[in-house]
Amino acid sequence: MSEVSLFDPVRNGLDKNFRLTNCTKLKGCGCKVPQEDLMKLLEGLGQPDGEGMGIGLDSCVMKTKIKGVFLIQTTDFFYPLVNDPYMQGKIACANVLSDLYAMGVEHCDNMLMLLGVSSQLSKKEKDVVTPLIIKGFNDLCIEAGTSCNGGQTVINPWFIIGGVASAVTMKEKFIMPDQAIAGDVLVLTKPLGTQIAVNAHQWIETQQWEEFESLVTKEQIKSAYLAAMYSMARLNKTGAKLMHKYGAHGATDVTGFGILGHIQNLARAQKESVSFVIHSLPILDHMDVVASKAADNGLNFKLREGFSAETSGGLVVILSKDKAELFCKEIEEIDKVPAWIIGDVVPGSREASISPDMKVINVLHNNTL
Amino acid sequence: MSEVSLFDPVRNGLDKNFRLTNCTKLKGCGCKVPQEDLMKLLEGLGQPDGEGMGIGLDSCVMKTKIKGVFLIQTTDFFYPLVNDPYMQGKIACANVLSDLYAMGVEHCDNMLMLLGVSSQLSKKEKDVVTPLIIKGFNDLCIEAGTSCNGGQTVINPWFIIGGVASAVTMKEKFIMPDQAIAGDVLVLTKPLGTQIAVNAHQWIETQQWEEFESLVTKEQIKSAYLAAMYSMARLNKTGAKLMHKYGAHGATDVTGFGILGHIQNLARAQKESVSFVIHSLPILDHMDVVASKAADNGLNFKLREGFSAETSGGLVVILSKDKAELFCKEIEEIDKVPAWIIGDVVPGSREASISPDMKVINVLHNNTL
Repeated sequence: MSEVSLFDPVRNGLDKNFRLTNCTKLKGCGCKVPQEDLMKLLEGLGQPDGEGMGIGLDSCVMKTKIKGVFLIQTTDFFYPLVNDPYMQGKIACANVLSDLYAMGVEHCDNMLMLLGVSSQLSKKEKDVVTPLIIKGFNDLCIEAGTSCNGGQTVINPWFIIGGVASAVTMKEKFIMPDQAIAGDVLVLTKPLGTQIAVNAHQWIETQQWEEFESLVTKEQIKSAYLAAMYSMARLNKTGAKLMHKYGAHGATDVTGFGILGHIQNLARAQKESVSFVIHSLPILDHMDVVASKAADNGLNFKLREGFSAETSGGLVVILSKDKAELFCKEIEEIDKVPAWIIGDVVPGSREASISPDMKVINVLHNNTL
Repeated sequence: MSEVSLFDPVRNGLDKNFRLTNCTKLKGCGCKVPQEDLMKLLEGLGQPDGEGMGIGLDSCVMKTKIKGVFLIQTTDFFYPLVNDPYMQGKIACANVLSDLYAMGVEHCDNMLMLLGVSSQLSKKEKDVVTPLIIKGFNDLCIEAGTSCNGGQTVINPWFIIGGVASAVTMKEKFIMPDQAIAGDVLVLTKPLGTQIAVNAHQWIETQQWEEFESLVTKEQIKSAYLAAMYSMARLNKTGAKLMHKYGAHGATDVTGFGILGHIQNLARAQKESVSFVIHSLPILDHMDVVASKAADNGLNFKLREGFSAETSGGLVVILSKDKAELFCKEIEEIDKVPAWIIGDVVPGSREASISPDMKVINVLHNNTL
């Protein structure tokens, strides 16, 4: 095990003030068009025709022309949110694969890479940063047991990194997310607070830091940032595998709309008349207090309300109550990180909410690999 | 049949000076990172492992875990190059599907849409333009017999539009592009000069126009622009279909690297020791003279050298000499536009060149639909 460390621009031949995150004004999945606006914009697309399941769920599932064979695919691209180009590439890869894993799909037949090289970078910066991002993306493809063949690369004002994940598979290899029944519980496989950690990590280099220094140390922020980076770069593959073993009734992954946004989508998709109630929110240590102070200062991430954007967040898995603890235990054994039972499935009208008695679970940083 | 007409911002509730193409500094497939730089950047990706065919060819072809079943897919995204949002959506769709058609794949199982809404637009402009782009994209999906399920939408300084096209298919349904033999000929299914037409159409509104007005009229430029727009929005599906009927030995489509750039890639992929020689370049009426004058002024598109970028260009199809004329005749019967025999396959070392005796074929504009 070795300690995770911060990207050093100087050791990579760049100016000490080089920050990859300065190539954009929006970070990671926080760059998504808000869900409400998106739905309005997409009105022109009409309804999926019953052959496929589309917008609002994590992956689309299409019948192909070959009997019994389905195409499951997803795409995601966004802007840098960490300063380590190699880790940024890994995060982009983990984030796009996560949508397949949320369908219980354990394998990916092909990845495409989507890349926009920032026109704001010098030639030297491009030459250092771009291959590192690509290597991170590619290395995590290999770890996931897939490979990247094809893609598109353009020049763009902001750096863009993302991909397309596709799996061709039979019906028994994926799990439709619509099978919750009252009495089930919800399990979350990664802590919340990544967006707050990457923002706070920028603030420690600015005037804004003064507002926070009585509450938290710079070292604690750096530690949270590393923990967030490690968490975002981790594949949700184990979760996908165990969904089959423990007979999951569906899942979603947590990204730009926040945990409640994604669970609301999941609730609307259910076949039975059920609702989801969250009773616990696992949050990276110190991020709850930082979010609270930021809200006082006028920047409300809505973390406790369940709407703080995450990038490459965990899976929320719907499981029978008697299997959830075993699922969590086995995730922890394999991935060396905890998972938590965070909510209940109750009779209802396909809504999701956070209980007034909600408890924050403080998640200590795990910064060894 | 009705005449194609220009997009009117005022009739769409926008300022008379609104131009979609002002949301970017790079146009269409002209935004691609140059091929040489791209290859360098992608070094980190390593070589495809024999399971798939990747970079340099139009689509990747992957064996799936299901015996005999292949996943063929491609992605492309770029910036607006015409001012009509609806036509821009169609062009983006035709452009991405074209890579499947170049493999002789006639059907697409799913499209994903990649969208970056320009942060430079006012809310009103976003509300008018974005649904039109989406509708154009979606309408052409329907015309192609596919549908768009899923995608990603972000905010970006420049407008981005593109997609991912995927087909799941058996071996006999696609045509590997590596089967040219000496004596074959090359057929092109759309005229060249689209990038010059969209640029010239911007110049007629600027000071730059003075340089050209002795050579060509504004009406001739508008006509070329409409012809280019119509051509870019046309699917290469008929070409894909006829590739099977006439036993094509492979194909590529013409986009950002220019016709010679793409044919060079095609030549390198051949199994036999052959080279390609182009003897004719079909060019949209007036675009040859505009390109020549622009080169005198220091902006060399390299049209006659074969390197002028095209967006959603035609297929270059490798055919037996005895079948090429029938192929061209049938394309023209079905699509109401001509195709041309433009080159020869000769014994050689997998290179492509333009013959010193190259002739320009002047292609009149067809501006009725």
